[in-house]
Amino acid sequence: MGAAMLTDQVTEILIPVAAVVGIAFALVQWLLVSTVKLSPERQPGGGSDDKNGYSDYLIEEEEGLNDHNVVVKCAEIQSAISEGATSFLFTEYQYVGVFMAVFAVLIFLFLGSVEGFSTKSQPCTYSKDKYCKPALANALFSTASFLLGAVTSVVSGFLGMKIATYANARTTLEARKGVGKAFITAFRSGAVMGFLLAANGLLVLYIAINLFKLYYGDDWEGLFESITGYGLGGSSMALFGRVGGGIYTKAADVGADLVIADNVGDNVGDIAGMGSDLFGSYAESSCAALVVASISSFGINHDLTAMCYPLLISSMGIIVCLITTLFATEFFEIKAVQEIEPTLKKQLIISTALMTIGIGTVSWIALPSSFTIFNFGEQKQVKNWELFFCVAIGLWAGLVIGFVTEYYTSNAYSPVQDVADSCRTGAATNVIFGLALGYKSVIIPIFAIAVSIFVSFSLAAMYGIAVAALGMLSTIATGLAIDAYGPISDNAGGIAEMAGMSHRIRERTDALDAAGNTTAAIGKGFAIGSAALVSLALFGAFVSRAAISTVDVLTPKVFIGLIVGAMLPYWFSAMTMKSVGSAALKMVEEVRRQFNSIPGIMEGNAKPDYATCVKISTDASIREMIPPGALVMLTPLIVGTFFGVETLAGVLAGALVSGVQIAISASNTGGAWDNAKKYIEAGASQHARVLGPKGSDAHKAAVIGDTIGDPLKDTSGPSLNILVKLMAVESLVFAPFFAAHGGLLFKLF
Amino acid sequence: MGAAMLTDQVTEILIPVAAVVGIAFALVQWLLVSTVKLSPERQPGGGSDDKNGYSDYLIEEEEGLNDHNVVVKCAEIQSAISEGATSFLFTEYQYVGVFMAVFAVLIFLFLGSVEGFSTKSQPCTYSKDKYCKPALANALFSTASFLLGAVTSVVSGFLGMKIATYANARTTLEARKGVGKAFITAFRSGAVMGFLLAANGLLVLYIAINLFKLYYGDDWEGLFESITGYGLGGSSMALFGRVGGGIYTKAADVGADLVIADNVGDNVGDIAGMGSDLFGSYAESSCAALVVASISSFGINHDLTAMCYPLLISSMGIIVCLITTLFATEFFEIKAVQEIEPTLKKQLIISTALMTIGIGTVSWIALPSSFTIFNFGEQKQVKNWELFFCVAIGLWAGLVIGFVTEYYTSNAYSPVQDVADSCRTGAATNVIFGLALGYKSVIIPIFAIAVSIFVSFSLAAMYGIAVAALGMLSTIATGLAIDAYGPISDNAGGIAEMAGMSHRIRERTDALDAAGNTTAAIGKGFAIGSAALVSLALFGAFVSRAAISTVDVLTPKVFIGLIVGAMLPYWFSAMTMKSVGSAALKMVEEVRRQFNSIPGIMEGNAKPDYATCVKISTDASIREMIPPGALVMLTPLIVGTFFGVETLAGVLAGALVSGVQIAISASNTGGAWDNAKKYIEAGASQHARVLGPKGSDAHKAAVIGDTIGDPLKDTSGPSLNILVKLMAVESLVFAPFFAAHGGLLFKLF
Repeated sequence: MGAAMLTDQVTEILIPVAAVVGIAFALVQWLLVSTVKLSPERQPGGGSDDKNGYSDYLIEEEEGLNDHNVVVKCAEIQSAISEGATSFLFTEYQYVGVFMAVFAVLIFLFLGSVEGFSTKSQPCTYSKDKYCKPALANALFSTASFLLGAVTSVVSGFLGMKIATYANARTTLEARKGVGKAFITAFRSGAVMGFLLAANGLLVLYIAINLFKLYYGDDWEGLFESITGYGLGGSSMALFGRVGGGIYTKAADVGADLVIADNVGDNVGDIAGMGSDLFGSYAESSCAALVVASISSFGINHDLTAMCYPLLISSMGIIVCLITTLFATEFFEIKAVQEIEPTLKKQLIISTALMTIGIGTVSWIALPSSFTIFNFGEQKQVKNWELFFCVAIGLWAGLVIGFVTEYYTSNAYSPVQDVADSCRTGAATNVIFGLALGYKSVIIPIFAIAVSIFVSFSLAAMYGIAVAALGMLSTIATGLAIDAYGPISDNAGGIAEMAGMSHRIRERTDALDAAGNTTAAIGKGFAIGSAALVSLALFGAFVSRAAISTVDVLTPKVFIGLIVGAMLPYWFSAMTMKSVGSAALKMVEEVRRQFNSIPGIMEGNAKPDYATCVKISTDASIREMIPPGALVMLTPLIVGTFFGVETLAGVLAGALVSGVQIAISASNTGGAWDNAKKYIEAGASQHARVLGPKGSDAHKAAVIGDTIGDPLKDTSGPSLNILVKLMAVESLVFAPFFAAHGGLLFKLF
Repeated sequence: MGAAMLTDQVTEILIPVAAVVGIAFALVQWLLVSTVKLSPERQPGGGSDDKNGYSDYLIEEEEGLNDHNVVVKCAEIQSAISEGATSFLFTEYQYVGVFMAVFAVLIFLFLGSVEGFSTKSQPCTYSKDKYCKPALANALFSTASFLLGAVTSVVSGFLGMKIATYANARTTLEARKGVGKAFITAFRSGAVMGFLLAANGLLVLYIAINLFKLYYGDDWEGLFESITGYGLGGSSMALFGRVGGGIYTKAADVGADLVIADNVGDNVGDIAGMGSDLFGSYAESSCAALVVASISSFGINHDLTAMCYPLLISSMGIIVCLITTLFATEFFEIKAVQEIEPTLKKQLIISTALMTIGIGTVSWIALPSSFTIFNFGEQKQVKNWELFFCVAIGLWAGLVIGFVTEYYTSNAYSPVQDVADSCRTGAATNVIFGLALGYKSVIIPIFAIAVSIFVSFSLAAMYGIAVAALGMLSTIATGLAIDAYGPISDNAGGIAEMAGMSHRIRERTDALDAAGNTTAAIGKGFAIGSAALVSLALFGAFVSRAAISTVDVLTPKVFIGLIVGAMLPYWFSAMTMKSVGSAALKMVEEVRRQFNSIPGIMEGNAKPDYATCVKISTDASIREMIPPGALVMLTPLIVGTFFGVETLAGVLAGALVSGVQIAISASNTGGAWDNAKKYIEAGASQHARVLGPKGSDAHKAAVIGDTIGDPLKDTSGPSLNILVKLMAVESLVFAPFFAAHGGLLFKLF
């Protein structure tokens, strides 16, 4: 076998150091963003300025006009957005908190009951000759790690939102000095979120492992099984964040001209929701890899460095992304609008290239040259370079998915231009072409995922898939920075418009926003691709833990699971889409009511009643997120308890292979419609000008497509990948219960 | 075991007798329809009337007005539709004929090569101790049965079209005497098609089996393996019929106000395409059942009556449907418009109830009380009443799917009314609500399918599933009669409008048409549900024949197949939807050109150039049906040859569980939009009148939804079930080749 070059002591230092470096880097970026001051001219009553409390005046505007009123207005708007987002998240977290508590109790009761709450040690699941800690301990620690994951997820989302709402107005103000300055501000703010989240996720997981070790000692099997609760907690919160935030933002979008809620929505949906989502994926792929490693030679031999391979990959990812970020902020400078998108794309390419070297290094120094991996009851011989290939193929598959997504959603290429062109003959052809585009955009990503799965599965079984997922997520800090950049720029544009800033400034924020739209689609592509790999890894871990060795499609129990599982994404989408529709309907009615009952709104003499609009969005999203949330959270419990682990395995496989397709097509269809509309509006080419301008028949058709795309790309699409992985991780956590007491219905008949 | 009550001699007489009775009944119905005469007033030049050549005058119109010009016009229009449809089908069949020839050669070469074209007898696949006929014989007879299936499918579609175009104008003319008369004419014509198709399919299959037996003798295994080509031929033609016809009719729809092509389209798509489709399902489920039976105790013991159980079920189905039809045509009479839909629904209920007794009888007299069924390498003990349950559950699941489909697509219920209501806020909410409705409508049908699969799978393995599919299709004659009634009524309405008939008559044909819309959706539900069961049965037969005993999702080969298979329906839909979009675009341009270049069209003084429009539709559909057709036909060949049978099994399972969902949701979404529009147009309730009238904003939004729904419900949706079953039957036919030479890529590396 041969030992790894890296000693355990060094490993134990390297991981937390990398995490701390990541956090420090995030703080530095935040300090740099904070040098942009929002003018604190005292308002009568000294209201909003306290929120951001700076006393310096803003640097003079490039064009010589230093209109303090504009700055004050920006600060006011920012403050309103920040307040709205904070208030929404607090409301959301209250409800979710109740759920969290109830579900924690459920976890404890279900898992505790496996051995009748006995405190005696039990034979281990995989090494029947050894004794492991009691099932009760697993129940307790799983509950604890569930809560830890949930809290970390909430914190990740909340911090992201805070940073984004801190940066949006600053980006607007920097736009007065030039597009380069504005870009750097938005991008740095995105980086704050990206690095905080990546480093935080790693650090909390590392600390939790070390704390759990105090109790578990040498029982690594038990230790890492309990840790899987961390992933479950992370993704549960992500589900509610995505669904709730998605409904909120889209309900608000309908009334965009009237309310600030649209900008609030971007921050709670695209920022907080996505942050929780990617944190969940990261936590789950780490947990899936660790739980398989604990029953492979790494765990059996108590080889700490090799065991920590997934964490070392993530640590390396932080360092690589740090260097990559410098390429955008320090080494190069953006001078023109058309440089924005290439710069963001370069970030992806640079981080992927560097990370390939990083993975190679980690695989070389942290792994023995040869070892064994648990493979459904057997141990499979694997070499270190094979594991390198597993991680690397995940990483590069992510890049492929990213670029395919860009091709299908950016209006620089023919697919979106064709969709825009189809607006000539009306909204119906626009919708038909848009749906067809989304369906078509599924093909290459699925092949990329299939190839990664085949290679990593063949090389290193389920562990290979878990680390491939981790590979795709290893550049998460850069990915999130780019991703968060989008909504921040979107907000900046919104603020510029509301503050009545000049046409030139709005052109700049629009350019930032257009690039952000495409990167948002790329981010969703990453999230879906990694979710597919993560789910499969979790699925494999579940099957191992539930002690079934095959999932044969040609058994009735499995097949009905498969077909019902493939149906779940449709059920879920039906719920979320209808929720958006109903909430939007209510919002439209309220807006109409205000226009009729508050005199002077139309002329701008009276302020509309924002609070009521925000309340409608909030109430709708809180109320409407419960049924889809319940569907996802209860399905594994019901299926596992009543139909048993085979049917549940079928459900997971079905939901995975069906959900990925709908998620990709929904996200890309929505993104394409959005950019087809923007293409016509911008009128940058001869073709676009023929279709435009704003208000033409073709543009009206494009707007209809854009509105239809909203729930697809911001609510149902990006929630589906959470559905898939959440059901998998929940099944994994509850596996001992299902294995012991599941399948009641079949036992009865 | 115990022998069956029915002797082999009686079985051999009963089956052809039932088929002949069915054909005779169809002819009687046709004679009754032909008593309605199209007035043959001689036109200068004696043109179109020769087509229908009747010399009697039409019975006087109820309202005293006997306007011969109207009748002449009806005859003219009918003749134009009939000519258009015939000409399209001939063009289509020419191209498809070339494909048929090429594919027949492929089948022969692939299957012949299994044993190197050797003419020596081989050990049987399942009973290695016995000798079976050589692989070359299998190649030859599979090719022959493929061609036979293809020709029967073409004949079924063509006859259906001929009858429908014969009946449409007659229904219009009968509408002058009352809605009851018109209904009977349309329904009888549908019955002609239904009975001809069901009886024809049974008779040809029966004759083929008896002819093949002359060569195969006691080698039933080889005999029934060769017969599977019959199903492949049937479904290949169905695919081209559905896709080609679907593109044609939808391209024509866009220019509906101008061209007769819309009515032609209904006949080639909804009638000929659907006829081929259901014939394919029927042929495949019979073949799947027979091939499994041949290696079960029925085949091993050469128990002819039990072996013919699937054919006896179909024979009983013809008799039951015959009685059921009398309830609509003889026992009751429709007097008012609101009685139409209940009468059609009663047909379904009566046929299902009677058929349950029929199945019980057949199971009782044709089966031994206990026997064994082949179950992936083992023989499973089954009792006759268990098989009764398998068939019955399929039958009743079909009824459930039918009624759920009706609930979601008829404007008598809240789902469609909600969609109509959402038109208040524009096309975007209409589309969102419509898509959500389609997704939601998947839930209950999938549960119904899952329950049928679970029960029949558990009771009688793959044979159980095959006979469950057959159960669902056993009332095919009634199902098709109801189904064909729809397009005939639609055509009748179109003719009434074009002939300028009075408002009262058009109200009657509209009522017939509205009921037809819902029954069309029910028919699609049946087609999809039965396709799911058929595919699974074929899939099981394929796995048995390919000599793999498990399809374990948790092997890389199978999983990549699963996820890629789940992607195929998206790829296919992207192709077909875009084809419809492009063809429609071309049609719009031609219509605009004619309006501009032919003076007097607008005022009705000049005839538009129909021929060019028809040619555009024809060319587009012929050209555009090739890529999706190639995708479906080549995928099993490529996957099987290069990746082997395990990956192919994954692809089949993935395509099945994903395709069924898209097919159901696409059909129902489209149906709901169509009827939401009709709901607003008809204005039958207070709510509908608020949304209307024709031309209101809400109505415009509804029209957009209807147009988007066209390719979903008439092209991609109903073709997907063919995709699923066609890939399965093709894999089954080519299984010996894949098992012998497949998986090249894995062998190389």
